[in-house]
Amino acid sequence: MKKFIIDSIQAHVPKRFLLTYQKKLESYRKELASIIKSKSYEMLESSVYLPFDLNLIEDVSQLVKQKKHADLKYIILIGIGGANLGVKAIIEAFHGSCSFFKQKQIQFFFLDTINPQWCLSLIKFLQNKRSSEFLIIFTSSSGQTTEVVVNFESLSHALSKHFKNLFHRIIIITKKESPLFKKAQTNNIACLTIPSIIGDRFGIFSTIGILPLALAGFDVKNFQKGAQQAALNGIQNSIEENPPLLSAILTYFYYKQGISIHNTFLFDSNMESLGKWYRQLMAESLGKKQDLDKKNVRTGITPLVSMGTVDLHSMVQIYLAGPKDKFTNFVYLEKTQQDIKLPKKLPLPQLIEDLEGKTHEQIIKIILFSTMLAYKKQRLPFISIGLPDMSLESLGYYMQFRMLEIMYLAKLLNINAFDQPNVEDYKKEVRRMLKEGVIG
Amino acid sequence: MKKFIIDSIQAHVPKRFLLTYQKKLESYRKELASIIKSKSYEMLESSVYLPFDLNLIEDVSQLVKQKKHADLKYIILIGIGGANLGVKAIIEAFHGSCSFFKQKQIQFFFLDTINPQWCLSLIKFLQNKRSSEFLIIFTSSSGQTTEVVVNFESLSHALSKHFKNLFHRIIIITKKESPLFKKAQTNNIACLTIPSIIGDRFGIFSTIGILPLALAGFDVKNFQKGAQQAALNGIQNSIEENPPLLSAILTYFYYKQGISIHNTFLFDSNMESLGKWYRQLMAESLGKKQDLDKKNVRTGITPLVSMGTVDLHSMVQIYLAGPKDKFTNFVYLEKTQQDIKLPKKLPLPQLIEDLEGKTHEQIIKIILFSTMLAYKKQRLPFISIGLPDMSLESLGYYMQFRMLEIMYLAKLLNINAFDQPNVEDYKKEVRRMLKEGVIG
Repeated sequence: MKKFIIDSIQAHVPKRFLLTYQKKLESYRKELASIIKSKSYEMLESSVYLPFDLNLIEDVSQLVKQKKHADLKYIILIGIGGANLGVKAIIEAFHGSCSFFKQKQIQFFFLDTINPQWCLSLIKFLQNKRSSEFLIIFTSSSGQTTEVVVNFESLSHALSKHFKNLFHRIIIITKKESPLFKKAQTNNIACLTIPSIIGDRFGIFSTIGILPLALAGFDVKNFQKGAQQAALNGIQNSIEENPPLLSAILTYFYYKQGISIHNTFLFDSNMESLGKWYRQLMAESLGKKQDLDKKNVRTGITPLVSMGTVDLHSMVQIYLAGPKDKFTNFVYLEKTQQDIKLPKKLPLPQLIEDLEGKTHEQIIKIILFSTMLAYKKQRLPFISIGLPDMSLESLGYYMQFRMLEIMYLAKLLNINAFDQPNVEDYKKEVRRMLKEGVIG
Repeated sequence: MKKFIIDSIQAHVPKRFLLTYQKKLESYRKELASIIKSKSYEMLESSVYLPFDLNLIEDVSQLVKQKKHADLKYIILIGIGGANLGVKAIIEAFHGSCSFFKQKQIQFFFLDTINPQWCLSLIKFLQNKRSSEFLIIFTSSSGQTTEVVVNFESLSHALSKHFKNLFHRIIIITKKESPLFKKAQTNNIACLTIPSIIGDRFGIFSTIGILPLALAGFDVKNFQKGAQQAALNGIQNSIEENPPLLSAILTYFYYKQGISIHNTFLFDSNMESLGKWYRQLMAESLGKKQDLDKKNVRTGITPLVSMGTVDLHSMVQIYLAGPKDKFTNFVYLEKTQQDIKLPKKLPLPQLIEDLEGKTHEQIIKIILFSTMLAYKKQRLPFISIGLPDMSLESLGYYMQFRMLEIMYLAKLLNINAFDQPNVEDYKKEVRRMLKEGVIG
């Protein structure tokens, strides 16, 4: 793999701070290394082993062979949060958020939140297709997330009128303990599982991510390869060779100084969902009321997603002039997928000087460097992260890098990265209100 | 218009505070009222008069008659920031973010940031159409925003090979002082102007917003009607009858207490761009280094956009358990555009209890109320804003309400809401680097 470049000079974190916290993380780093070697799913951190798991790819391949007909055109992914954000991130990174123009490749439809208008459009669209043209993937770890169950029931109820064997065109991804697993067995619906201990937001290299991507024809081995590399780097001793460790300590440095907003500023408009995937990873993993000693801490770093260059015309005024409460990560591609060269003679010349003959890629980079320079002049702390290209390998590296970074950060913050106890607060109320029929 | 409901009970702001700052804003409120009556564009706040301006609608209608052929199918909007976010907000509110399924209505393509892949797809798509099937709107107040100029030049250069009279299918929106205005004249390109004093982010009721919407067949008079109502409410004396005044003072109350993050939590997945429109309005208007007395203040409220119910599975853990640094506005629809009723007999029954026979709209409301209850239990401050429906009138009301709220807030913060001096910081660098060809 080409090099993944992290430039942390503008973070201005003292060497001594880095070394101190590197030492504090020493035993945790070794623990992570031993998990990869253990080849099992027994620890909360066991997701680091996922990209090395050959059985997983084997299970997925078999199901793909069985379900993917030559005329497969549409994949409907019913899932929310960690269960769909990772896949959405990859699909959009390659194809853009709206694949209106790409009718040759397999088209993804994401059903996450409840939106009856969207659900009805989808039903109407699918009811005149052949059943071999689509597959519905229903991902829910617990099998009890209201939104996705509502969407699944609505869609499958409506489509079952048009397709006698609709259940043959459904794949369920869930945990073995969930009631959904049993329903899949009883109704003869194809089902893949995820290890009990792996949470959705650390699950992109489990069946949650690998199955949809494999069905869509992506070479998932390259995706795993990038993640393997990131994991191997992420257990290195040397902080310079260990990007997740470095990034975690830098973020922690600013958190300790009261800078509790983290801004991922992505300079490629196809990476917005990748930003949102990380946003939920950080928010759910680090936003905790209590630390590991049951002390009330109300910890948390609020993640922002900013898009270059759009947010230079939306948010940059407050970033440059407002409160100094943000630590920024610029994320960019060393090389764009395609490029356009402006002609020597522009249709409306001289609106802006010196554009003639330049390429889009050059201009994006000029804008990126100018933005970083403006940050530097205002003494705003940032790092930059350069992905070599938009490839599955790079994206696999990036996602594994971020998951390891969050594990290290949680360790520094002395919290549990793997639970989300307070999400239950509203879920309990939902169940009560559904029961009492409060609205209706 | 049906009622626009603001519930501010859970903001817990003392009556005395409200009255004190209502009094402080008394003269500004009167000033705004007089601007509406003045029927002119002389003040920075003159955007409040835009929805009352009959000449504007007349100019737009004439151009629509001239340029809109019966077979118009595609509108390409080249603009960034305030120049396109408002239109995007309206289009997506009605049609969703990807109008893949709605091939009957006029399709919008937004070219904002530089993304060569997207630009090439668009070129390829358009080059085989008839010229009467598309229109290109190029919106740039200054005519000198790098990204949109690059996109305009690239698109028009490529398309000019296929369409001899391409300039006839282009409409420019700019200010009279801009070099772009002169280019439009010289090249015989249709051009509409915006009043010199109106900034893009307050310009949704100017030609920037009205022309694209009118071309797409929206009844822009209803859009204006909602905005007129919001403006008339926004100059009322009574704080209970004046939503923008009330909302501004509530936000200011928390800002003074150090709560400097503002979270708009929208419970309809088609409203994400509406959230982003407000995000730029707040960030650019309130993020200022200096106040009106030239004192260094580094003021600013960092706006977040959260989407219900998606972000309940992404962000809500940190919102409920993390630092209490956010003031939340829940925004919801009293009535969804369409609805789906779940059957009495579900395809996979009993995954979640009590879903049978409920409608999507009921379930969304149950989730919304449950979320607000969870916020209440954690004593997190919030208000809720209920739009009666997804109509142009409601959206017009909402947007004008927000613009007035930001004006009142800027007045309370003693800053200029209408400039963005620090955006120039990186723009200067861009020009220098283009000149020096630093990257090449």
